[in-house]
Amino acid sequence: MQLNISHRAQNIAPSPTLAIDARAKEMKAAGLDVVGFGAGEPDFPTPAHICDAAKEALDKGMTRYTPAAGTKELRKVICEKLRKDNDMTYIYGDILVSNGAKHSLYTIFQAILDPGDEVLIPTPCWVSYPEMVRMAGGVPVFIPSDESTNFIPTSKDIASRVTRRTKAIIITSPSNPTGSVWSREQLQFVADLAVSHPFYVVSDEIYEKLIFDGQKHLSIAQLGESIKAQTFMVNGLSKAYAMTGWRIGYVAGPRHEISAMANFQSQATSNPNSIAQYAAMAALEGDQSCVDEMVAEFEKRRDVMVERINSIPGISCLKPQGAFYIMMNIKQLMGRSYHGRVLESSLDFAELLLAEQQVAVVPGVAFEAEGYCRLSYATSMEQINKGLDRIEAFVKSLE
Amino acid sequence: MQLNISHRAQNIAPSPTLAIDARAKEMKAAGLDVVGFGAGEPDFPTPAHICDAAKEALDKGMTRYTPAAGTKELRKVICEKLRKDNDMTYIYGDILVSNGAKHSLYTIFQAILDPGDEVLIPTPCWVSYPEMVRMAGGVPVFIPSDESTNFIPTSKDIASRVTRRTKAIIITSPSNPTGSVWSREQLQFVADLAVSHPFYVVSDEIYEKLIFDGQKHLSIAQLGESIKAQTFMVNGLSKAYAMTGWRIGYVAGPRHEISAMANFQSQATSNPNSIAQYAAMAALEGDQSCVDEMVAEFEKRRDVMVERINSIPGISCLKPQGAFYIMMNIKQLMGRSYHGRVLESSLDFAELLLAEQQVAVVPGVAFEAEGYCRLSYATSMEQINKGLDRIEAFVKSLE
Repeated sequence: MQLNISHRAQNIAPSPTLAIDARAKEMKAAGLDVVGFGAGEPDFPTPAHICDAAKEALDKGMTRYTPAAGTKELRKVICEKLRKDNDMTYIYGDILVSNGAKHSLYTIFQAILDPGDEVLIPTPCWVSYPEMVRMAGGVPVFIPSDESTNFIPTSKDIASRVTRRTKAIIITSPSNPTGSVWSREQLQFVADLAVSHPFYVVSDEIYEKLIFDGQKHLSIAQLGESIKAQTFMVNGLSKAYAMTGWRIGYVAGPRHEISAMANFQSQATSNPNSIAQYAAMAALEGDQSCVDEMVAEFEKRRDVMVERINSIPGISCLKPQGAFYIMMNIKQLMGRSYHGRVLESSLDFAELLLAEQQVAVVPGVAFEAEGYCRLSYATSMEQINKGLDRIEAFVKSLE
Repeated sequence: MQLNISHRAQNIAPSPTLAIDARAKEMKAAGLDVVGFGAGEPDFPTPAHICDAAKEALDKGMTRYTPAAGTKELRKVICEKLRKDNDMTYIYGDILVSNGAKHSLYTIFQAILDPGDEVLIPTPCWVSYPEMVRMAGGVPVFIPSDESTNFIPTSKDIASRVTRRTKAIIITSPSNPTGSVWSREQLQFVADLAVSHPFYVVSDEIYEKLIFDGQKHLSIAQLGESIKAQTFMVNGLSKAYAMTGWRIGYVAGPRHEISAMANFQSQATSNPNSIAQYAAMAALEGDQSCVDEMVAEFEKRRDVMVERINSIPGISCLKPQGAFYIMMNIKQLMGRSYHGRVLESSLDFAELLLAEQQVAVVPGVAFEAEGYCRLSYATSMEQINKGLDRIEAFVKSLE
């Protein structure tokens, strides 16, 4: 037998953005003034009352194993959150707490996919979805969409991808990378399709709280008992409470499946960090004004960024309704050139922009969305303006 | 398509000890005076200087994403630990930090096993090994051993299990559940076999520090460059520093494989808790007297427990060299009966002992070791004596 890694491990696509990300970090480390629009996390610190709760947990000696699925106390607090925010009724046995929403998603696919099972993924999509599906032996089936439908696939496009092997669909609202929010009608169409087929719905609601213009988040699981019974509601503390490093995510879903996932998790990783679990209770139960303040700030930044991008000839963007990302359309720049180098892809654009103007953006190809770049506005207004000045200069310099 | 869980999830064996564990917890919750010998974690609190480091991390705002494989700083501190304690040279790129050693092991098997690959597992073995191998599509191949060889399989028994499909062997020294420590000669035999075949060695060294009678831990990876190049050294902070709830484990291994594992982890869970990573540095770099004190206490308890068990006619045990477990031999009790109920298995014994004397032990069947029960001495001397009094009374009452 050869000493080699598994096909599973070999098949994990190397991130298309890894090289550019590494280059941006090198430049920063070398002292260059890089403006970073790549961040996938709030630039705010974790609110003080949450950190204080963590210290309390340490003082109380809460440093031992907890149940693998999370403490009963935290799971009950999550149920109360789902009742209050989402008008949903779950009991703690319907909840699994994991090491971040990413881990929740990974475990869902391990628990529901057999080799060859298909998972519908609307694109542009988050980079990890197709990899997670493949890691479980599944087949990602992309449903493309573009700006003409606000980056949400049409009902026709969704329905046409459903086959005998469809096991699940992923819905991300608000969306990373587009910031789009699905309407009730759009969710209802998916719900009806999922119930009649049937297939599962994996509803990634990690950006739930980051929603603008006075809108309120709607989960597909809220559309009735039938769809609730086959939906995994995935959420976490990372984005709403600036707790990315703490790694607390959770999923609420059908009891038999959650129980299988808890069993899986008990053999694969055991419980999430006990101190972070305690802090998560403080985040969910405590004063929510920290969330409101963060959302107000993100909304202001979004407005500035959208206005500035659309004022630059050659590039444009929609006004996203949530999350903290903008998909910048660079299609008109394709074929133009910079000092003789012709721009042929979002990767070309991102590489040149970084090299020439020290601005880091994520090329759309990472999200199955060629012709765009993703800009995060989880950075200060000053950085946003500085970065856009540079992008403007770069675009104007193209021949 | 049916809405059902994956075969992978269906095939995870329900823990044979789950029911008895749940029963013990119910009894405790109901106010009964249960003596617990089931614990898999130190009964000491995390040392204060480690908790203080966690508070420092909170004050410094170390609450953001770290690299998925762990911070460079922690990985360098781990390299220094491996140099100092184990005389091994690694660079930080050879290290992956995960959510506990369990998670490290899970990720190793995901990264090296294709369906049908065989993994040699000496028994008695830790409950999660066979499950983790199966979760990666692998086939556990057990190598039985008993007290006549101090629970370490003979060279002949090991060699006879090697086939064309052998991809790895698991070595656990000191061992959970037996407390046995492999000798240099025993490790050398495995190393030679692994190098000539070749197959990987997964060396679980989580109990490294819990070793008695003045012995020093020896890792199979220390036996030369060839075996080092195909060994995964797995360790973590849980047992040595009473940090079970924090979930920090790590693996040092061949660079290409570690890199594949880091890639896998970045898509499956992302980084371990950032605050715990910082605290782990304090644990590894700080004063080690907390470890020495804990080991001295465990050694004392071991001695009492071994003596007491061997003073009770009908049961017996070897004197383990490490960890904090004892395998109590109950083979002579099989066929005897309690109020008409005949004891036919370790599960029968454990169930009856719990019901009649409120003493919780783990039946050997959980470790592929029928005829034994595992007793943990990660509990106070008072509890140890009380529990053994009750076991003595129970054994004497058997007809």
